[in-house]
Amino acid sequence: MSNTNRVNQDLLNRIPGYESRKAYEAPFANVPADRLSGLNTGNIKDEVRRDKTTASLREAIEKCEIKDGMTISFHHHFRAGDKLLMQVVDILAEMGVKNLRIAASSLTSAHSGLVEHIQNGVVDRIETSGIRGRLATAISEGLLGDKPAVIRSHGGRARAITSGDVHIDVAFVAASSADCMGNANGVKGKSICGSLGYAKVDAAHADKVVVVTDTIVPYPNFPQSIPQTQVDYVAVVEEIGDSKGIMSGATRFTSNPKELLMAKRVVEVMKASPYFKDGFSMQTGSGGASLAVTRFVKDEVIKRGIKLSYALGGITAPMVDLLESDLVDQLFDVQCFDLTAAESIGKNEKHVEVSADFYASIGNKSAAVNKLDFVILSALEIDTDFNVNVISGSDGVIRAASGGHSDTAAMANMSILVAPLTRGRLSTIIDKVTTVVTPGSTVDVVVTDYGVTVNPGRQDLMECFKKAGLPLITMEELRAMATRLVGTPKELEFTDEVVAVVEYRDGSIIDVIKKLKK
Amino acid sequence: MSNTNRVNQDLLNRIPGYESRKAYEAPFANVPADRLSGLNTGNIKDEVRRDKTTASLREAIEKCEIKDGMTISFHHHFRAGDKLLMQVVDILAEMGVKNLRIAASSLTSAHSGLVEHIQNGVVDRIETSGIRGRLATAISEGLLGDKPAVIRSHGGRARAITSGDVHIDVAFVAASSADCMGNANGVKGKSICGSLGYAKVDAAHADKVVVVTDTIVPYPNFPQSIPQTQVDYVAVVEEIGDSKGIMSGATRFTSNPKELLMAKRVVEVMKASPYFKDGFSMQTGSGGASLAVTRFVKDEVIKRGIKLSYALGGITAPMVDLLESDLVDQLFDVQCFDLTAAESIGKNEKHVEVSADFYASIGNKSAAVNKLDFVILSALEIDTDFNVNVISGSDGVIRAASGGHSDTAAMANMSILVAPLTRGRLSTIIDKVTTVVTPGSTVDVVVTDYGVTVNPGRQDLMECFKKAGLPLITMEELRAMATRLVGTPKELEFTDEVVAVVEYRDGSIIDVIKKLKK
Repeated sequence: MSNTNRVNQDLLNRIPGYESRKAYEAPFANVPADRLSGLNTGNIKDEVRRDKTTASLREAIEKCEIKDGMTISFHHHFRAGDKLLMQVVDILAEMGVKNLRIAASSLTSAHSGLVEHIQNGVVDRIETSGIRGRLATAISEGLLGDKPAVIRSHGGRARAITSGDVHIDVAFVAASSADCMGNANGVKGKSICGSLGYAKVDAAHADKVVVVTDTIVPYPNFPQSIPQTQVDYVAVVEEIGDSKGIMSGATRFTSNPKELLMAKRVVEVMKASPYFKDGFSMQTGSGGASLAVTRFVKDEVIKRGIKLSYALGGITAPMVDLLESDLVDQLFDVQCFDLTAAESIGKNEKHVEVSADFYASIGNKSAAVNKLDFVILSALEIDTDFNVNVISGSDGVIRAASGGHSDTAAMANMSILVAPLTRGRLSTIIDKVTTVVTPGSTVDVVVTDYGVTVNPGRQDLMECFKKAGLPLITMEELRAMATRLVGTPKELEFTDEVVAVVEYRDGSIIDVIKKLKK
Repeated sequence: MSNTNRVNQDLLNRIPGYESRKAYEAPFANVPADRLSGLNTGNIKDEVRRDKTTASLREAIEKCEIKDGMTISFHHHFRAGDKLLMQVVDILAEMGVKNLRIAASSLTSAHSGLVEHIQNGVVDRIETSGIRGRLATAISEGLLGDKPAVIRSHGGRARAITSGDVHIDVAFVAASSADCMGNANGVKGKSICGSLGYAKVDAAHADKVVVVTDTIVPYPNFPQSIPQTQVDYVAVVEEIGDSKGIMSGATRFTSNPKELLMAKRVVEVMKASPYFKDGFSMQTGSGGASLAVTRFVKDEVIKRGIKLSYALGGITAPMVDLLESDLVDQLFDVQCFDLTAAESIGKNEKHVEVSADFYASIGNKSAAVNKLDFVILSALEIDTDFNVNVISGSDGVIRAASGGHSDTAAMANMSILVAPLTRGRLSTIIDKVTTVVTPGSTVDVVVTDYGVTVNPGRQDLMECFKKAGLPLITMEELRAMATRLVGTPKELEFTDEVVAVVEYRDGSIIDVIKKLKK
């Protein structure tokens, strides 16, 4: 009844550049197309735009119209406690969908069931930071055939997604709580996981986004780790994950005397460097010794009366303790490594959730890793060229994760690798690592239980450490020591079949993992 | 010295799909291109990625390599107090750049100097939500020639940017504080403006982003309204804006009895509707009566023992009072309309900064406006078809802003227009509004000092209001009343020259503004 037809084609033709523009018709007559994505994203005044909840996870999946060959993404904030990925793939299998690509921020022991879904053709490609357990073994044995798994660092994955190298058709977000419009976080609800840092990248770039939760809260949910602007459907399930699972894997707290010794040595190295001063920043990886470092750093900054500017990474209880002791200005948290961290991020505004893009990507205009002074990292193997392997075991079988290893090593002022010289009958220091994840030119210092080894490219640090009287040992001496202790390992024999491709953070291929000869 | 050449072309050729991929060379050898934007965005380990501050604003501008014909964007959170836009355009004029397009979230009296820059060819296109003062008059008189100004709603502008309809070459962000990497906000520093909601959209989508501040803080700045991941350069200037300027324009608090009467009537209308119940949401626009509504709503929700879920929009002191009185769960704030709001958003986590995209865009998967129960809006003119003009005066001259008017009217369960029937010798209710900004089909109720007028399309509301005994008056009766009071205005005479195009929120053209006959 209202008359608003002020504009017609004749008028548009008279304005230069407006010949092909549309005249207004009615408030919701025109669903605007997105020139960048090609999608019709118009949110019109229909029911789904006022309440996006679906009757079931299956209904949400059906509405997404997932077709053979599409890419679906997941995040691993629940780690071994994740209960979403297998639910979704099971439903897609029931629906008869085939040849899916799983783009996960990482895969854990919770995802062994993918083996069967690969065997039956539901899934044919895997892209992830890490793979563990039965799935890792099966992939190492050639499960994926001529479509090798793609291993990316956390920053590299973010870069691949934001740049369009990896196009996600449907992203699934396991959210501890969500409202009916999809505003979601990991800090409220019956199963908390803390930061949703990896999921933030997926949700911002996927064609469709399904938020799955076991705790629906009134609108508007707060905080909005995932904003409603990015969410198509909200599905409620019995349980999205087991919060206890986030403690699994390499996040245990050490009481191992050797690890504690190495942790103390790491802090000596930090102190002897030019970077240990008021306002420094650090990240510790997972792994016993590297976590203990944070405890010893605390003692030292108190002694000196200084403070950290920020701590980064997967965040752990010792980091939260630093924040609560007012010894660090902020925590940047892409993933909570324990429940203490998951609880802290929900209540302390200086415990800041950041996306994997903000954390570590080389594809944006600067990431948090760019300002790192120290990163303390663990390793499965380090070779005499300082190259590091964190993905495959010395048996050649995939067993761990790339994580933020290469991202932080590349950007920190000082990257410190900490590892025992030997583990059982195996040496950590070898001639050639089984798989290169982090290139040796980005590794500055290696701390073992046998001394401190400095990359010859860092003569500046060598000088500092000499002055401080640290127990320096060259890589060659270290290698010789290992040989004396455990001998020379038998070289692995591989076939030509590539079972996984390791991408460096910039998208170049740094190594491949091949199938072992039987 | 390190040997990481595990991968060569021969190996890549043997992996299906990897034939044209790059092998790793060195940590920073490969600057990855962005497939989506076509830009090389790799942040490598150079100085600018560890400290983005430039020696001067001019240096930052020079580094952006702004060329003739490019689009530069600005936001208007400092409103009449903005000091950045003119500084930037003055420098670009000195540098000899021509034919720039200014994509501003709005323009105020602070930008009259653009008149000369248009006359001398530095600027040739203007896209904005509003234009005021000398610039508005000059554009109404044909200053822009055959390139009419483009008027968009706040949601429409966000849609145009996120969809790629408007491509921003360089976005300038006036930030109250920033660190050396570009993390920026509007809540710390010597000149605060509060929310940076419009700038968030620009920074996320521009090719290059310059953060300009008068307050540099240590890294990492918090909160990160604009994250470092989006920022190319940080420039420090004497003063970015005058905080007092944000109070200017249509944000004064009323003591006008007629406005207070209308505000009370608006609340009566709200109460008589089905939407005034626990958990309702609302937005008030700027304008005296519409601001006073919030005060009266407060009394009513206290009386009923209910609470709002969220309040939206340009946020004002009465809204902050609701939040601090625990009568609303959250404020969603795209722009602070006064200093009380600007201070609140810096300290109250439930006072949430949202982008213009989150606020009101039709181009995402749902905006905050989608869940609005009530929006209270002002008007310069309303016609008998309920169409609303908020951009041009009854003299046909541009003088105000589209704002979130059409976005909220389209999506709220009940849009309430509040305006006095007459202003001096002019009637607000006329036969045909000078310019249609908000289509009548999205206007539900008109409250004037002469009664309550319901859109015939909302018989449901008519029933409610009759039951409640509200003073109902039809649009025709209202129009007749206005004629009796002030007569029929002389019709304006326009030429065929289009001086401005009014886009509806979906990108269609809803009206044009033509040049007046002398």
